[in-house]
Amino acid sequence: MGDEDVVLLDFWPSPFGMRVRIALAEKEIKYEYKEEDLRNKSDLLLKMNPVHKKIPVLIYNGKPVCESLIQVQYIDEIWPHKSPLLPTDPYQRAIARFWGDFVDNKIYDLGRKLWTTKGEEQEAAKKEFIECLKLLEGELGNKAYFGGENLGYVDVVLVPFYSWFYAYEKCGNFSIETECPKLIAWAKRCMEKDTVSKSLPDQDKIYDFVLHLKKVFGIE
Amino acid sequence: MGDEDVVLLDFWPSPFGMRVRIALAEKEIKYEYKEEDLRNKSDLLLKMNPVHKKIPVLIYNGKPVCESLIQVQYIDEIWPHKSPLLPTDPYQRAIARFWGDFVDNKIYDLGRKLWTTKGEEQEAAKKEFIECLKLLEGELGNKAYFGGENLGYVDVVLVPFYSWFYAYEKCGNFSIETECPKLIAWAKRCMEKDTVSKSLPDQDKIYDFVLHLKKVFGIE
Repeated sequence: MGDEDVVLLDFWPSPFGMRVRIALAEKEIKYEYKEEDLRNKSDLLLKMNPVHKKIPVLIYNGKPVCESLIQVQYIDEIWPHKSPLLPTDPYQRAIARFWGDFVDNKIYDLGRKLWTTKGEEQEAAKKEFIECLKLLEGELGNKAYFGGENLGYVDVVLVPFYSWFYAYEKCGNFSIETECPKLIAWAKRCMEKDTVSKSLPDQDKIYDFVLHLKKVFGIE
Repeated sequence: MGDEDVVLLDFWPSPFGMRVRIALAEKEIKYEYKEEDLRNKSDLLLKMNPVHKKIPVLIYNGKPVCESLIQVQYIDEIWPHKSPLLPTDPYQRAIARFWGDFVDNKIYDLGRKLWTTKGEEQEAAKKEFIECLKLLEGELGNKAYFGGENLGYVDVVLVPFYSWFYAYEKCGNFSIETECPKLIAWAKRCMEKDTVSKSLPDQDKIYDFVLHLKKVFGIE
């Protein structure tokens, strides 16, 4: 690995990895993509993220950066030439970070519950999941993107979950578009950009992956 | 409330609130401190943090910023004149953010387990708590502060837990100093600064508060 290479240790269905892929694509940065087998992690992954041992890891100049929200901010700071992701105004930056954290703390866990639980637990997760999406819809308002006229930090953080939506809907037996039409319109708008659509796997492929996981975990 | 006031909605034992107090003290910013009764939250809190309804909330120019890690970064960005908290180098910023997140995700929850659980569960929490502190000691290395020669972001984020250490030790029946002497030396170094010591409650007072909580929650 050369010192000036950019390497991404990733796993294709990871919404966290997708964030980094989109951010790098927005900045037009070429990078080497290395797929990890999470049941048999590479020595490079264990060396580059010894604390959490998790993907994604972004390696630039031989030095690792971990945690996707931090990676997206880092990418924005070292390649500011193009597609600024965070706003320049400190208050707007704080608000973007707030919603980024909100997505990180709520959407993944609730989404996971949608396909790992049943009955009352699943219903509760579904209710809270929709409430969270509605809060996000409120923050989006009438803007084209969370970032305003252009894709920004919160868009990059949230849109990867769109590739998981179909799996959530099938497992949870509900329609996200019925509940949150404006959010789905936003997601489709994001998908019109190559930087997004080429960074996200098909919804069908994620659904097949979820069905596979359900079998592995013995979830009916 | 005037538009140019700085107001902090807080609760005295909160390590998250303490971070904001230290950051404001480091920047020499005067502010109005408003103590919240968390069993009877003020209308102002509910209005200013409608999503999480949690303290601390920093209100500047009438506009709220929530989540303590975001607040500390915001304070650093709007008052850059003095005591820079985050490094200027993007890689070092990413590393500081990584350890800030690590503290946020590990220390509070594990610390809470130290006084809310018993037996095997408590032993497991104690073991992981010490492991996390040792990782932090490794990151500190031989520097005076995590920020290097001066107090920085990770110092501000972590040192509030020092006021909880005595309660953890009494409830968990162990000595943090025996396990992590360098970290305790660092904490005492931080406490020599007025900006830190005046922002943190006494360890005894936190221990009394924990004993009170144990009674309220019916924990023997």
